[in-house]
Amino acid sequence: MAILGIVAEYNPFHNGHLYLLEKSRQQGDFSATVVVMSGNFLQRGEPAFCDKWARAEMALTAGVDLLIELPFCFATRSAYYFAKGAVQLLQRSGVVTHLAFGSESGQLSQLQEIAGILAHEPESYKTALKKRLSQGWSFPLARSSALQEYMGGEKKQLQEILPGPNNILALEYLRVIEEEGIPLLPLTIPRQGSSFHSSDLSPYSSARAIRQALYHNLDWEKITNSISPATEKILQREIALGRAPIGPDSLEQAIMVNLRLVSTDYLREIYEVSEGLEFRIKEATNSCGTLEELRQFIKSKRYSLTRINRTLLYTLFALSKNQVELYDQHGPQYLHILGFSAKGQEILQKIKIKSKLKIFSRGSEMKQARDKNPGTALAEMIKLDCQATDVYSLLFPNPATRRAGRDFTTSPVPGT
Amino acid sequence: MAILGIVAEYNPFHNGHLYLLEKSRQQGDFSATVVVMSGNFLQRGEPAFCDKWARAEMALTAGVDLLIELPFCFATRSAYYFAKGAVQLLQRSGVVTHLAFGSESGQLSQLQEIAGILAHEPESYKTALKKRLSQGWSFPLARSSALQEYMGGEKKQLQEILPGPNNILALEYLRVIEEEGIPLLPLTIPRQGSSFHSSDLSPYSSARAIRQALYHNLDWEKITNSISPATEKILQREIALGRAPIGPDSLEQAIMVNLRLVSTDYLREIYEVSEGLEFRIKEATNSCGTLEELRQFIKSKRYSLTRINRTLLYTLFALSKNQVELYDQHGPQYLHILGFSAKGQEILQKIKIKSKLKIFSRGSEMKQARDKNPGTALAEMIKLDCQATDVYSLLFPNPATRRAGRDFTTSPVPGT
Repeated sequence: MAILGIVAEYNPFHNGHLYLLEKSRQQGDFSATVVVMSGNFLQRGEPAFCDKWARAEMALTAGVDLLIELPFCFATRSAYYFAKGAVQLLQRSGVVTHLAFGSESGQLSQLQEIAGILAHEPESYKTALKKRLSQGWSFPLARSSALQEYMGGEKKQLQEILPGPNNILALEYLRVIEEEGIPLLPLTIPRQGSSFHSSDLSPYSSARAIRQALYHNLDWEKITNSISPATEKILQREIALGRAPIGPDSLEQAIMVNLRLVSTDYLREIYEVSEGLEFRIKEATNSCGTLEELRQFIKSKRYSLTRINRTLLYTLFALSKNQVELYDQHGPQYLHILGFSAKGQEILQKIKIKSKLKIFSRGSEMKQARDKNPGTALAEMIKLDCQATDVYSLLFPNPATRRAGRDFTTSPVPGT
Repeated sequence: MAILGIVAEYNPFHNGHLYLLEKSRQQGDFSATVVVMSGNFLQRGEPAFCDKWARAEMALTAGVDLLIELPFCFATRSAYYFAKGAVQLLQRSGVVTHLAFGSESGQLSQLQEIAGILAHEPESYKTALKKRLSQGWSFPLARSSALQEYMGGEKKQLQEILPGPNNILALEYLRVIEEEGIPLLPLTIPRQGSSFHSSDLSPYSSARAIRQALYHNLDWEKITNSISPATEKILQREIALGRAPIGPDSLEQAIMVNLRLVSTDYLREIYEVSEGLEFRIKEATNSCGTLEELRQFIKSKRYSLTRINRTLLYTLFALSKNQVELYDQHGPQYLHILGFSAKGQEILQKIKIKSKLKIFSRGSEMKQARDKNPGTALAEMIKLDCQATDVYSLLFPNPATRRAGRDFTTSPVPGT
């Protein structure tokens, strides 16, 4: 039985996501679709526009059968660790057979060739990469240039592939599959529509363009073209309930106050803070009045805005190098189910037989697992996910909805 | 040479404060007035409406000669420790001879009699107090009732005196003078105008009524009657610069996010958290969506709203029981000068001769004292004051004014 796996943020779910779903399903005789989706915080180090259960619900209306949360400790990481956590989660479900992902390129074999280099790191590639890193290049640029040097003749091709944000994730999925020998069959679908950075609104608007339209003036007319009526209804409901919209910088005060109170010793323990970055962050903290200023102040050839933004989030959650090492050592430890269709429930029964991971399809199970395994990677990962949800809930515009503990009290969203 | 000392918050400076100043000066032949003023955080556990230098400036225009900051670790404490820190600071200046304070009562000897009981705690009073505390009464109520029992016949008098918020502080000043044998001569001036809790606007409006008028609609016409033109000008300037108004709950996100992230073990170390209060705070944190809800949730017969509000502030600044013990053991360690008149500068020269405390009339001196005495009460107190200023600065409406380190870069405000 073939089951399709997809990794997504759905922030929010839009026609581009639907296109990937439908095109992927046409590639085989799949009996169900399982999606690993980020929780309330995203790979760019920011909170989602609306909460994870609402986003899961959108996906269910589009025919996804089962939604599993990608834990915070993978969802808010750089592309490689994000991909690794997600692919491992799909694999450890024990039932997913295929992994589909969008890419600007759409050429699987070409992507696989590059991913092979990333996975096996031939000596001369490694040397070229190290040289550039030691010169202070950012990791993405250093890698791109080292690959170009290594692959020589195919320079032009590489120049087309490497800048694409979907290609980058695609490469990481393929790399993880190769590195870990994961038996998932990859499929890639050429991406449709605007790039992430575009703010054009079209039938294939980027999620960012849709969010912008909603932040600024709740301009529904502009976006109804880009999202399904079902998604629109869910978004409207969340906004009416006062659980959305959540702005990307809405944790500004908490992050900045915390940074003014902590020491450089504290910062040095935080994941991704190295090479004296703690001093740069502290200096920025003292000079800057907003998160945006802070990011711009810290930004350098070496540190991209996105990486800085993630690091700032880690400082708030006190995510330490040691903790992350523990998480990476163990990989995903549980399947937190955010939503399922009728078919999804059947799949869940299969997972219960095939998977070694804990399955949380009730909040109480998650709480129990945390309380019964103190100090383990499992418990620590749950704790972090719950903290993320509890902090996220405080961002809801309507104070009456800000109660903590939603991970322990919210049932998976049922499909229609 | 007689020098008048006063303790104040000036949030903001108004006609009632001016009245106290003028009436006090008429009580003797004073060559100068020295005021110990709270910094950016107040006894009610909230940030000031505008910053400490602006408030010092208001007092200078009203004829105060020297303004000294009451450190955070005393300014945000219950009445007794607030009074103790302030009175010790005045005494340790080495030059102040008199202490003037307002009171609803206006009867010094009567207040001194009660203060004597508080200072010496006769056995039967102590027993009565303990009994009530063990029954779960709040401290103010337990004390009031124990005093009534102890003083017997003078019940009616007590019932008039004890509820007055100015009387309460007056009693604590007198108690500290008695307990510590401090050679300051007390003067009390009957308070003029509305009580703290009143929101009437009149020539003697309370500071609260003035703040409310400014928060809600910048209704200057309503308040010009209650403040001097000079104070009005300073307030208008601070608002125009985007350094005011600061709302009492403006640290809401930082406090609530922090509370959702910390453990009950963390809370148990915090000053004023005892008797299982950590669990109540944690429970409230999980249930509530705003600071106001949080306070109301935690409130009980034992814990007043103000005490809770202070405790919530301590949780943000991680002010521990151990730290406070250290501060109380040593008392004020320095005179941070916020402003001076020409006469104030002369007084400062006298203080330099007479006082054993460090004097900071330049930011660099404060920084140096902190850096050269690591681990001492002096350095820790400075650190906390600077953290308070740096966090407070983030609350300024205008992001361009939020830079940290103002304690190290701001000179005392000169009088006109």
